[in-house]
Amino acid sequence: MPAALAPAAQVFAAVRARRPRVHCLTNNVAQAFTANVLLAIGAVPSMSGDPAEVAAFVAGADALLVNLGMLTPAAREAIGEAVAAASAAGRPWVLDPVFADRSPARADYARRLVAAGPSAIRLNEPEAAALGAACLAAARARGAVVAISGARDRIGCADRESVVETGHPLMAEVTAMGCALGAVVAACLSTALNACAATIAAVEGFGAAGARAGAKAGGPGSFVPLFLDELHGLSGPRDQLERHS
Amino acid sequence: MPAALAPAAQVFAAVRARRPRVHCLTNNVAQAFTANVLLAIGAVPSMSGDPAEVAAFVAGADALLVNLGMLTPAAREAIGEAVAAASAAGRPWVLDPVFADRSPARADYARRLVAAGPSAIRLNEPEAAALGAACLAAARARGAVVAISGARDRIGCADRESVVETGHPLMAEVTAMGCALGAVVAACLSTALNACAATIAAVEGFGAAGARAGAKAGGPGSFVPLFLDELHGLSGPRDQLERHS
Amino acid sequence: MPAALAPAAQVFAAVRARRPRVHCLTNNVAQAFTANVLLAIGAVPSMSGDPAEVAAFVAGADALLVNLGMLTPAAREAIGEAVAAASAAGRPWVLDPVFADRSPARADYARRLVAAGPSAIRLNEPEAAALGAACLAAARARGAVVAISGARDRIGCADRESVVETGHPLMAEVTAMGCALGAVVAACLSTALNACAATIAAVEGFGAAGARAGAKAGGPGSFVPLFLDELHGLSGPRDQLERHS
Repeated sequence: MPAALAPAAQVFAAVRARRPRVHCLTNNVAQAFTANVLLAIGAVPSMSGDPAEVAAFVAGADALLVNLGMLTPAAREAIGEAVAAASAAGRPWVLDPVFADRSPARADYARRLVAAGPSAIRLNEPEAAALGAACLAAARARGAVVAISGARDRIGCADRESVVETGHPLMAEVTAMGCALGAVVAACLSTALNACAATIAAVEGFGAAGARAGAKAGGPGSFVPLFLDELHGLSGPRDQLERHS
Repeated sequence: MPAALAPAAQVFAAVRARRPRVHCLTNNVAQAFTANVLLAIGAVPSMSGDPAEVAAFVAGADALLVNLGMLTPAAREAIGEAVAAASAAGRPWVLDPVFADRSPARADYARRLVAAGPSAIRLNEPEAAALGAACLAAARARGAVVAISGARDRIGCADRESVVETGHPLMAEVTAMGCALGAVVAACLSTALNACAATIAAVEGFGAAGARAGAKAGGPGSFVPLFLDELHGLSGPRDQLERHS
Repeated sequence: MPAALAPAAQVFAAVRARRPRVHCLTNNVAQAFTANVLLAIGAVPSMSGDPAEVAAFVAGADALLVNLGMLTPAAREAIGEAVAAASAAGRPWVLDPVFADRSPARADYARRLVAAGPSAIRLNEPEAAALGAACLAAARARGAVVAISGARDRIGCADRESVVETGHPLMAEVTAMGCALGAVVAACLSTALNACAATIAAVEGFGAAGARAGAKAGGPGSFVPLFLDELHGLSGPRDQLERHS
């Protein structure tokens, strides 16, 4: 008899059952990998960044990712439309303030987006420092989950902080890994779970898949396909198919 | 003595012999994978979407792909230039109306492009429904091949409909698979074959490579490199190299 | 006792020790692969092409890559800002005039960039022919290294020409391989070595990784992850980890 699924696996199973549409405004570098990560967990990605149609895409989606990796004037306009559409429709949205530590204008812009009320913020230590502790504490007070990636991942909710220690060093040697995690958080937020539990599950499952792939990989190149295979297996789709057959 | 090549393999061998240049106006998510798919079958991809130079690229190409995955004002301008250049030069072009079912404005735009006379239209069931049966029937009456992807692929020509049942379920769990098929159809159309036979061969060969890769893959991640290897082998390049050595 | 590292491996070890930031203005097709190539050799990629912030990114970077693969008006503006910022800060920068042979306007633009004083120019034979021998000779006279990729790679410095014969035929069947080499040249230029030796090492190491990956690959798909693993191993990170443990 198979063991019961761990909590993270239950969330990933809920994602696969729901097949949420996740609209991603993300940087060019991350788009294809993010789409493949979402497909691997059973979500349905879309990526259009055209200001003229982004509101329609968000209105038809179950969650939104806003990643600042490569800003342009058109991207800023699309982000404004998308956040308004997500807020109007009550959809969860995730902010990933990529490289907020590299340009002051970008940090300012990221702080304004934090104030617009994301459900979760996914970032790394230098980006968190650039936004500032006060900015992130205020976000948590308003109900946002703040997930800071690093050797140990720290997930801060309104009243508690959790530490997740899954993962593998090769995850830092592949581009867009953090960006893709932001999309996975968005997918998990679209399940009925509370945002804190959903984000912890997303980070745990993502790291567990990385640890398994890293144990088999010969380097960062072979890591990527193994990682997607492990993500695909997280909710046990093949196991479950076998149980039901 | 090697067995005779199947009809689809003959078309892929013709592509490899001709090394057609295929200019692709396609979405960011699909660009790298599409380029690698074209290189794997022996075609030469280019992807510039700059309205200022797209006509020069199309005039120097053997076929054109117009994929609507990520529209922007500049993309629409480039598409207009490219379709005009392809029509003026008598080059085959393929339309892939991605996400025509997600936004009414996009469906309208796709219908106008159908009226501009593509050689082939590659789409899925929801996109076909969004364009409407009348639109697609009119396209077939004007000579366009209509290839609808699904569990079974249906290729409709002027006077007949063919069903292709190659493929693998993992093909639906990798991003840009349908977009890349559109580029393969464009490459096959650049051979001297009639458009109907070329499109059927493209769909068959693409699906056969997917079936072989899927039988070996551990999930959607490991599927991708195996799929490209299988596409590369479709026209038997290594066999032929061995015969000549 | 491990054998002494070959000269190219010493340069790659210097890159890994320095962890240079390499800002890349490159085409959409090449971005993700280029980022993964840079991460594999221990460099830190950034890719923003927004004219409003590109100067800040370049000022904080150790080297710049300017790749013309997909020009747009905004890309041209960003290139101007980036080249000015790199020149002002004394940072090495690499020009890759992709497809200069496909459009006369692009060749003109590339020649103007050659005159702006890149540290190195990475291109293929048709692109070199489009720029013209006089243009490239003048660049070498001003101190630029000119690296022409082909079956044999030729690296021309002020006073000598070197030939590098590493590499593998599969490298020509994967997209963005030459673009990624341009980024590796930029990373190697950021070490203290003279530009000629750094460029030769970049081309040699890149080709050596390709040769090793090609010997194991089943085709162009499986080549890519193997190639990144080999690049990752070039400076012997796993060896060194073992020695210290």
